[in-house]
Amino acid sequence: MSQIILASASPRRKELLEQIGLEFEICPAKGEEIITKSIPEEVVMELSKQKAEEIASMVATFGAENQEITTPSDILVIGADTVVAYDGKILGKPKDEEDAKNMLRMLAGNVHSVFTGVTLVLIDKSGRAGEIVFHEKTDVSMHPMSETEIERYVATGEPMDKAGAYAIQGKCAIHIEKIDGDYNNVVGLPITRIYQELKKIGIDIYLW
Amino acid sequence: MSQIILASASPRRKELLEQIGLEFEICPAKGEEIITKSIPEEVVMELSKQKAEEIASMVATFGAENQEITTPSDILVIGADTVVAYDGKILGKPKDEEDAKNMLRMLAGNVHSVFTGVTLVLIDKSGRAGEIVFHEKTDVSMHPMSETEIERYVATGEPMDKAGAYAIQGKCAIHIEKIDGDYNNVVGLPITRIYQELKKIGIDIYLW
Repeated sequence: MSQIILASASPRRKELLEQIGLEFEICPAKGEEIITKSIPEEVVMELSKQKAEEIASMVATFGAENQEITTPSDILVIGADTVVAYDGKILGKPKDEEDAKNMLRMLAGNVHSVFTGVTLVLIDKSGRAGEIVFHEKTDVSMHPMSETEIERYVATGEPMDKAGAYAIQGKCAIHIEKIDGDYNNVVGLPITRIYQELKKIGIDIYLW
Repeated sequence: MSQIILASASPRRKELLEQIGLEFEICPAKGEEIITKSIPEEVVMELSKQKAEEIASMVATFGAENQEITTPSDILVIGADTVVAYDGKILGKPKDEEDAKNMLRMLAGNVHSVFTGVTLVLIDKSGRAGEIVFHEKTDVSMHPMSETEIERYVATGEPMDKAGAYAIQGKCAIHIEKIDGDYNNVVGLPITRIYQELKKIGIDIYLW
């Protein structure tokens, strides 16, 4: 019996895995995020790796300690991190409402990029069996927004826990003109890429 | 007090209007769909017009008959129709599972276009006050799918009531490589375009 572990507390990532009908456990990484890179694609891969490896280490240790009393199973740990990038700046979650408004003023009427980094750690009976690290980029075109629209949107509370201060899958949908790339990557987890990367190495996530 | 009426029974369109926080009534059009056009953008606009106008006529008549007993209110009726177009063919909902499989065999590994036509009918105290008709196009790139993947997806039952035999917002997400355009247009209702078209003529749908 194989097991999938999502190393993230994000309700959006949970919903995306549920959407495609997977069964999985949630075990959010709690370690400090250490950023040594500066370009967005490298930052998100680095952070996704820290999250997935933190949980993978716990699982592997637990498996080893308990190998006499549990049946070791194949385990897949999924770590992910998402940022918004515009004009050389990396935008994470806003600090407060004023910060959220400033981010929206910057993004409205322009095209920005959303980067999600993903690390997949595979663990089998013998321990760490493999690791896949990638990033996915989606370009997002936002309509211009008036100050009234920005204030109204921030007042919904939706921007506060989102990279770039907006939720494409929420009330900000009316301000998104179009995207070029994977939509779920903007939501926070490129599920199509995860499925296809595992398929490439012969893993059918539904039969696994 | 203004009122929004969605002239569609589609649960996806209902969810999209709910997502952006609108209050509305649902009153699905029941008339026969009459197609006189042949290119996808014209077909979806024609069908959305028939749906919106069927409901608008009922509402306007009802309003006129009851003007002594009800306070006439401004009303917006939304009609929409979605098709998938590939290689000169227009794909609606599949007739049966075999038809669904054939549609997926056609779309997998290729880029197709999704067209949604929208008609917005505005009704005020004096009757029909205006009409906006438009279409929105989104290009969708699908990963190649094996026969096993096609059969497994059709077995979920998801394709049967969807134009082009797939739901981008459902289990088919793992087979969608990327899109170019509005995601919600593929789901069935381009809510951003509806909001922006009304904004252009001075209607703020949230204060209306």
